[in-house]
Amino acid sequence: MSRYLTLIPYLAAQKILKTSARPEIKVKTVQVTNSPGHVSHEPVFSRLTIPVCAISQRDGYAVTASDSYAATEAEPVEITTFSKVHTGSPVPEGYDAVIMHEDVRLDDPGRIMIIRPARPGQNIQKAGSEVKTGSMVIPAGHLISPADVGAMIGYGITSVQVKNIVAGFIPTGYELKEPCTAPGPGEVIASNCEMLAAFLDQAGVESVIYPIVPDDPVQLRNAVELAVRECSFVIISGGSSTGNRDHTESVLSEMGTVLYHGVAMRPGKSTLAAVVDDIPVFGLPGTPAGALAVLRELVIPWLSDTGWPVPVQHTIQVTLADSVPSELGTDDFILLSVGNVHGGYKAMMLPRGGGQMSAVRSDAVLHIGRGSEGMKMGKECLVRLTRTYPHPDNTYLFNGLYDPILDVLDQFLRKKQQRFFCRTASHEATLLSVRHKNTHGGVTIRRGNGGHGRMQQDYSLLEGRAYAITIAEREYILAAKTTPEPGPGKKFTCPGLSDNSQLQQMMDYYLQKTGVNPADIRVIDGYNTEQEIIQGLLEDKIDFGPCSASLAFDYDLQGPVIGCDSIDLVIREEDMESEQVKNLVQLLESDEWRGEAWVIPGYNLERSGHVFLLST
Amino acid sequence: MSRYLTLIPYLAAQKILKTSARPEIKVKTVQVTNSPGHVSHEPVFSRLTIPVCAISQRDGYAVTASDSYAATEAEPVEITTFSKVHTGSPVPEGYDAVIMHEDVRLDDPGRIMIIRPARPGQNIQKAGSEVKTGSMVIPAGHLISPADVGAMIGYGITSVQVKNIVAGFIPTGYELKEPCTAPGPGEVIASNCEMLAAFLDQAGVESVIYPIVPDDPVQLRNAVELAVRECSFVIISGGSSTGNRDHTESVLSEMGTVLYHGVAMRPGKSTLAAVVDDIPVFGLPGTPAGALAVLRELVIPWLSDTGWPVPVQHTIQVTLADSVPSELGTDDFILLSVGNVHGGYKAMMLPRGGGQMSAVRSDAVLHIGRGSEGMKMGKECLVRLTRTYPHPDNTYLFNGLYDPILDVLDQFLRKKQQRFFCRTASHEATLLSVRHKNTHGGVTIRRGNGGHGRMQQDYSLLEGRAYAITIAEREYILAAKTTPEPGPGKKFTCPGLSDNSQLQQMMDYYLQKTGVNPADIRVIDGYNTEQEIIQGLLEDKIDFGPCSASLAFDYDLQGPVIGCDSIDLVIREEDMESEQVKNLVQLLESDEWRGEAWVIPGYNLERSGHVFLLST
Repeated sequence: MSRYLTLIPYLAAQKILKTSARPEIKVKTVQVTNSPGHVSHEPVFSRLTIPVCAISQRDGYAVTASDSYAATEAEPVEITTFSKVHTGSPVPEGYDAVIMHEDVRLDDPGRIMIIRPARPGQNIQKAGSEVKTGSMVIPAGHLISPADVGAMIGYGITSVQVKNIVAGFIPTGYELKEPCTAPGPGEVIASNCEMLAAFLDQAGVESVIYPIVPDDPVQLRNAVELAVRECSFVIISGGSSTGNRDHTESVLSEMGTVLYHGVAMRPGKSTLAAVVDDIPVFGLPGTPAGALAVLRELVIPWLSDTGWPVPVQHTIQVTLADSVPSELGTDDFILLSVGNVHGGYKAMMLPRGGGQMSAVRSDAVLHIGRGSEGMKMGKECLVRLTRTYPHPDNTYLFNGLYDPILDVLDQFLRKKQQRFFCRTASHEATLLSVRHKNTHGGVTIRRGNGGHGRMQQDYSLLEGRAYAITIAEREYILAAKTTPEPGPGKKFTCPGLSDNSQLQQMMDYYLQKTGVNPADIRVIDGYNTEQEIIQGLLEDKIDFGPCSASLAFDYDLQGPVIGCDSIDLVIREEDMESEQVKNLVQLLESDEWRGEAWVIPGYNLERSGHVFLLST
Repeated sequence: MSRYLTLIPYLAAQKILKTSARPEIKVKTVQVTNSPGHVSHEPVFSRLTIPVCAISQRDGYAVTASDSYAATEAEPVEITTFSKVHTGSPVPEGYDAVIMHEDVRLDDPGRIMIIRPARPGQNIQKAGSEVKTGSMVIPAGHLISPADVGAMIGYGITSVQVKNIVAGFIPTGYELKEPCTAPGPGEVIASNCEMLAAFLDQAGVESVIYPIVPDDPVQLRNAVELAVRECSFVIISGGSSTGNRDHTESVLSEMGTVLYHGVAMRPGKSTLAAVVDDIPVFGLPGTPAGALAVLRELVIPWLSDTGWPVPVQHTIQVTLADSVPSELGTDDFILLSVGNVHGGYKAMMLPRGGGQMSAVRSDAVLHIGRGSEGMKMGKECLVRLTRTYPHPDNTYLFNGLYDPILDVLDQFLRKKQQRFFCRTASHEATLLSVRHKNTHGGVTIRRGNGGHGRMQQDYSLLEGRAYAITIAEREYILAAKTTPEPGPGKKFTCPGLSDNSQLQQMMDYYLQKTGVNPADIRVIDGYNTEQEIIQGLLEDKIDFGPCSASLAFDYDLQGPVIGCDSIDLVIREEDMESEQVKNLVQLLESDEWRGEAWVIPGYNLERSGHVFLLST
């Protein structure tokens, strides 16, 4: 086995799969009511003639048309041979027309007066006019729709044979633990196969997940042998690279033919495909991002190429909010968040890498071909939407510092079928993105120095007038296990931080305001972070210390509020009158928002929705 | 109860529903693996910190960075305190960097030589860098995606509370029979609720179908009482008009508030909505087309208005192949078949009416607003696709006479992810549609008069050069129970048809060709249709008679072939070189097509794919 992958171009891998691998199509019988989304295996023929006999299309009277030919308004004709019928009821033998009850004068029981001649066949649906026994309802190879369910049941069909593709998943890796277990250091709960199976389910593919196989060639071989017997195609999750513990390639090359090992795509380059006993076997990277990219960009398109009805994805034209670098010679697949920013769709890049949260947060995928070195910010391009709810039209797109209150804001907007997405970025990157107008705005935190006083902060990167709108204030307290009781001669121990630190400034401001005698306080060094202060309090090494309220409450610490940060939206002046921004400001001012957010301890919502000009 | 409906505009009905009716949202717990497509009821927080501890991002060696600072290519540094690590394995306590194995020279076991200093943190993923215990993974009100499944399982979550809407269906009508029964005259198998439930399933709504209720107000009231207790909203199928057997309106106005009864839409005008015990109740027409229109155009948009994530439908710009009349004051919803005809999407109207086959055959819906009297042929308009497989790009659109071989052709093309759709039309209408270039072409039948001879047929409506391409020939035989054996003095009885009839001409041609003495044949009148001839043969009233082979075989009748019809595609000369037409002609010439169609008795495939100029 080679120590390095031999990468083939992404399009070459697609082509190889198209020509050399086909899933084994299986057949199963399903109830008609469960058949939508399945593909018929055989044509379905009507078992009934519908309607069974001639039926009336109106409430009225079945008559013999020739009895009525003389009728006029002036000289109505009396008819005594007739039969009362309802919409949908059979027309009795011998009658050939139906007269609507509106067009009849019923004088006595047993006779009707009509004022207009009836045409033979009038208001009658002939037997078999909708469908005849043996007529084809749907052909083989037809993707069954809900409308087909109505027709099949109505035509006497109760079950139908459908095509079935079964994907067999083999999770591999010494580090994997079954779901519902607690992973130890270096362990990971196996979740890739479940995720990939959920994607395949959306494409109408059934999945079987086999037990986890450790990195052992013999056990892997046994697992593959079983899976190729039982499944339409097989996916081995993990072990697809060239490391010491990667056995997929060597096992598959012994068992069958390896089609490729290594594809010039990112993520997902360490992937392989093989054919064993005519069954395609894919090796997928162990990272969730790599596995997902290979499934989405190689396996599912391959299924579509073989004729399987994979759902069509919506595409959308966006303007890139970031420059997206890409390596020449590599096909790059970038996850994006997309929002409608004042009338145009903007897309921001989500962090690459193996974690799962980028995929959870993404709305779309951008494909950059191997001939490109990437795309510049402001470039317009077509991207595939991976979700349409909430629609990008209803998504607020921000960059900025993270605080849990942003999750609460998102949560709040979801109730209104809207969404708040803030990509984590530094203060400087946030201001730049606001300046570039690629987002609705930014999220910044104006640090407090005591009470509602603020530390000096630099907004000059905005290069234009902008406003800050308060989402909420994050409170700091002088935390303690129990409230320190002053007494004669009593001294308190507190941490000493750097003079200019925010925590020190807030503590000094409070102690000064409340008139504590500095002589009563003993300062201990070595406490510079909130986490260290909490630790010192819990171990009784200090009596009190400044700390964010939400963190303190997590450890059952209490104390008076000594200051707060203001977590703000930063919006360009020119956008303040846009409908989207006005809507957001209105929501932040509302009691509804305060009602939503007050349950989160450690935040003050009095100033939510306050707007003020930033000095830049 | 009024005898007539009071119609309100379609948009008014939408507005009333939006402001006055909400489904009762229920909650259920599902396994994470079954959660995609559901909407989270509560925010989901990570139960784990991922990674659990610092882990290596490479195969290599964990070292203490400061041990390596002096390393250069010229003077490698030997390190003896290190630990071998794999991608994903924990970095043991005390080490702060990982060096890739490629960058290390392993001299002896127990020591490594390195040639470049390591940076602290290099190739190490910090504990909690992906997610921390208690971090929000998804908010409440989030439509769960397959990617979310991976994250939730990986973060220790196994089940999730989701929102649930349950629709309760009450089928009503004396004419309804349960599925799996044989309907008698005037009876119908109840299938509307199953069809509508299948549509709601695609919108993530669960359904309960209650037993059929006859047209009886007391039983209907009892059924509604139960359904509003159990369901989020209720649909009464049938009984929504103003006839004698329509009780929905009177029952619902007693039980609650009727919001409207009658909407100016087609189909579907006899529909109503009410609220009973805060639960919305809809009355839908009994015709499948009307029921489907109300569900698709009122109920599902209403669910979307209340915030339920209904899938977004694809729209497509089409040119109408027909003029579509519409009544002023009525919103019209027209089912269409859509195909890509030489580069542009064309849409043809499917028959309106209560049957199910139009919905089965439809690809799209056109909405004509109440202010329009309809749309002219050639008009460009936006329509909603109701299916995307096979895609309109792969659909052949024809008008013409129906023959079962067209079903076989469709079936054949489905194997190639293509589709052949021929809307039934008269010979004249077919030629006009070919002339108007709104379809790929037409299907006509050149009638045989014996052997391969053809009756004179008029193609002058084409007004341009066009070609006929044979799909297959439909054979006629001189049918008999057993082959009539001529003998001395023996006379045969055969039907007499009109002199110019196709059947008579074919029979005469054959008898003449085989030299039968006219004196040996006795002609009996009263047999003018194939069905009558079959009947005569079965009852031994005639010895032989002309009949299409496929029909004769159905009754176990045999005989020599006496002629055939040619079932042809008619294609404009200018389109003969288009890729789509060339592809179709190639397929009809192929042995593959003969192999597909030969199993259908009564057709001759020798001339399939033959092309010849029509004289016009």
